[in-house]
Amino acid sequence: MTTRELVGAPSFDPRTGLASATVPESTDAAVADAVRVAEGAAAAVAAASPAERRAWLRAVAEGLEAHRAELVDLADAETALGPERLDGELTRLQGQLAFYGDVAVEGSYLGVTIDGATTGTPRIVRVNRPLGPVAVFGASNFPFAFGVLGNDTASALASGCPVVVKAHPAHPRLSVRLAEVAREALRGAGAPDGTLGLVVGMEAGAALVGAPGIAAVGFTGSQAGGLALRRLANERETVIPVYAEMGTVNPVVVTPSAVAEPGAVDRIADGFARAFTLGMGQFCTKPGLLFAPAGSGLAAATARALEALAPDPVMLTRGIAQAVSDGLAALTAAGGRILHRREGTTAGWAAPTAVLEADVDELARGSRLLEECFGPVALVVEYGDEAELSGALSRLQGCLVASLFAAGGADPDAARILGWLTPLAGRVAVGDWPTGTATVWAQHHGGPWPATSRPAATSVGAGALGRFVRPVAYQSVPDAWIGPEADPANPWGLPRRVDGVLQPG
Amino acid sequence: MTTRELVGAPSFDPRTGLASATVPESTDAAVADAVRVAEGAAAAVAAASPAERRAWLRAVAEGLEAHRAELVDLADAETALGPERLDGELTRLQGQLAFYGDVAVEGSYLGVTIDGATTGTPRIVRVNRPLGPVAVFGASNFPFAFGVLGNDTASALASGCPVVVKAHPAHPRLSVRLAEVAREALRGAGAPDGTLGLVVGMEAGAALVGAPGIAAVGFTGSQAGGLALRRLANERETVIPVYAEMGTVNPVVVTPSAVAEPGAVDRIADGFARAFTLGMGQFCTKPGLLFAPAGSGLAAATARALEALAPDPVMLTRGIAQAVSDGLAALTAAGGRILHRREGTTAGWAAPTAVLEADVDELARGSRLLEECFGPVALVVEYGDEAELSGALSRLQGCLVASLFAAGGADPDAARILGWLTPLAGRVAVGDWPTGTATVWAQHHGGPWPATSRPAATSVGAGALGRFVRPVAYQSVPDAWIGPEADPANPWGLPRRVDGVLQPG
Repeated sequence: MTTRELVGAPSFDPRTGLASATVPESTDAAVADAVRVAEGAAAAVAAASPAERRAWLRAVAEGLEAHRAELVDLADAETALGPERLDGELTRLQGQLAFYGDVAVEGSYLGVTIDGATTGTPRIVRVNRPLGPVAVFGASNFPFAFGVLGNDTASALASGCPVVVKAHPAHPRLSVRLAEVAREALRGAGAPDGTLGLVVGMEAGAALVGAPGIAAVGFTGSQAGGLALRRLANERETVIPVYAEMGTVNPVVVTPSAVAEPGAVDRIADGFARAFTLGMGQFCTKPGLLFAPAGSGLAAATARALEALAPDPVMLTRGIAQAVSDGLAALTAAGGRILHRREGTTAGWAAPTAVLEADVDELARGSRLLEECFGPVALVVEYGDEAELSGALSRLQGCLVASLFAAGGADPDAARILGWLTPLAGRVAVGDWPTGTATVWAQHHGGPWPATSRPAATSVGAGALGRFVRPVAYQSVPDAWIGPEADPANPWGLPRRVDGVLQPG
Repeated sequence: MTTRELVGAPSFDPRTGLASATVPESTDAAVADAVRVAEGAAAAVAAASPAERRAWLRAVAEGLEAHRAELVDLADAETALGPERLDGELTRLQGQLAFYGDVAVEGSYLGVTIDGATTGTPRIVRVNRPLGPVAVFGASNFPFAFGVLGNDTASALASGCPVVVKAHPAHPRLSVRLAEVAREALRGAGAPDGTLGLVVGMEAGAALVGAPGIAAVGFTGSQAGGLALRRLANERETVIPVYAEMGTVNPVVVTPSAVAEPGAVDRIADGFARAFTLGMGQFCTKPGLLFAPAGSGLAAATARALEALAPDPVMLTRGIAQAVSDGLAALTAAGGRILHRREGTTAGWAAPTAVLEADVDELARGSRLLEECFGPVALVVEYGDEAELSGALSRLQGCLVASLFAAGGADPDAARILGWLTPLAGRVAVGDWPTGTATVWAQHHGGPWPATSRPAATSVGAGALGRFVRPVAYQSVPDAWIGPEADPANPWGLPRRVDGVLQPG
């Protein structure tokens, strides 16, 4: 028995900073048990057809609907993100669950490839197979969309892997309820026991990553957290992949032609202020650094826009609130000059809101100015010419999203600047702020190190399933021993490549 | 100036053990220069169309043909693998170069996905982009197929990445010549300078992995080597992927029904003895451990077959030769009993050939019996019943290939045993020895940790290109700024997914 059996994970109200309840932390035995039942379910979850797994995911979405009011209230009590936003996010979560089920049924993720069907060479059938139980560490900032049942969990289940979630300390009660609601729905839909598990507590999370039965890890959160889990995974006897989406500073570039349009400066400044304070700035896709043409007045305009918006943030956790103040001090020490700063007034986890500016020369490699300040804080840097801009961009870390504001398709500089942004980012947007991440086939929510630990992987969109499978090549194996994927009659209507030729399903 | 500038990499003749020449090792400056020119070429290599890159690869294949006799002689002098085998391997290499070019032109590896084409939602176009310069560490045992121009190099070039190869110490002169021949061909075909580079020496290899300009590593070789490179890559400021194919013990299971067929025991024993001595047992796909039904007599039959074959190995390196003797001693100490052992007689790097047997109970987790002995050595273990077999299989490490010998599709046990082998392996073969690895669309030459560092990746077959690209999602970006991949007219005839619907090219 370890000491953590004696304490619970407190559930805080960010608006007051007071704990209203605690949730029992998982013992070592409870973690081992969660992994054991997940391992026990793995073969059945893998053997279920994509259509069966889609039915499970749809049942979970329906189960959420039946508890909508309760779940939104609980989420708001633990996150202070507001009922309207959370209601919308719950609807988004339901859409995600349905989407990943549809992607599974479409079947491209299985990568079925058959050689030797007609060529007389040995028959080789390649099929992607589920890795096994996946540990999921959800994010604080999207309690539904990236929470217990979020993108990682839904894509892992869709790909045929049981999931054990580690409850987020920012919303432990919601995490427990989401798992209960989902497990009831899964049971009702015929999914095996052990398809979804939950553990609570930081030590439990570490034990989960170290458990031999866990085959992969999905994580969304801070760089410190993601890298710590990656280290744990690398120390295992059998090293497993850690898909950590850690976020960094997402840059925005405004071209000279873009600010030359009438009203553009105020419009861009207003959009920027709204984008970096959306959700109290607690987005991994928050635009944190805007490059403005020298003399454009965008920095001052952003300060005015922020002042007019007058946000009064309540942050998700005490730690995040403190990190905003600390981050502002560090940014100032690194050469940032505050253009506008407003203190938070809430009795709970208040944080300041601020926009800073800095000279482009200050953006040296390793400078704090190039690191994320998670919260409603952003930096504006003016560039004199393209050489200054490209030099500064070359010193940025990898990021999830980069945005470019240009004067339409005829902007003389835009394509060139886009070419400098692309190597930095998993997604590049033109004329859009980076904050929206649609759950679609073409989405890529990833980005070069250290934005993510596996830049080729995505945690949002159809590609997310590919993280939790590995190919197996079956050579001269009777089709019946492989399964419906290899059946020449193609009963699941899968897209397949046969003797090199791609055949849609 | 470091000390390694003063010494060269010796080129040994394995038949005598004598060094005939040395090749200068690369200085720190030479490594930095190789990376610098590769970085300089990266944009042009990435911007070349797949058809252009195919033309480059075909030119390399033609260049090899023009130097065939010289290259085969040189390879034989440094590896002692024999002119016939090496001539065939050179032809295989040419086929590989052509294959990866064809895969690039087919274009599925680009993963072009377009959302919002007809739906009114924001247009997102996802395209896989090359990572940049790739460091390649080829293998000792296939100087052509996995050498300077082998699978890693060809697939990286096909996917749009320049390559810097580290010459293998087992064939440094061949490495230099292959690079010269290839660079001449690439230049003639219009590829940029810096498309292919070469460095020599162990310190040079370490410096290469640490160079900030290198974006990924491909490696084929020992577990110690692969893990060392992975550690170096993990210590970089920007961590990069290491695709290490390290190999382990590839198991073979023979079912009771299979040995019941007349003549089957001698036929399987003969096939096994040939398979594990092929290429002096220096295959990462060598079958190292055969599970035979108790009382089948397969162990004794294998000993007879090996005695009749009477191989007299000349090993690739002094280290490998010594490791065979050391490995045999260790296997014996771990409970292996030698059934037949024959000493090598060559004046150079001779090694013994041997088959051992062990009790199934000896196959405990962590036992030396479960680890690879690279060379013409194999182990036979008899199993009494399926529980013994499945228990032993559950203790095996991940492997590249597992084989099953069964009595055809009606074998009552085969499908179940295949189900136990599949989680262990990247490829499973029925009725085939594991040693042949066809370069085809359906191939998967990978396997669970520690057989490879990235079990979902393959170093052979069409999937190999996917290791060296990452997706970028272009949101609301004018098509012309993205390139031909996003052109609605699809000038390259690429397979694409448009609004969720897969369209063959």
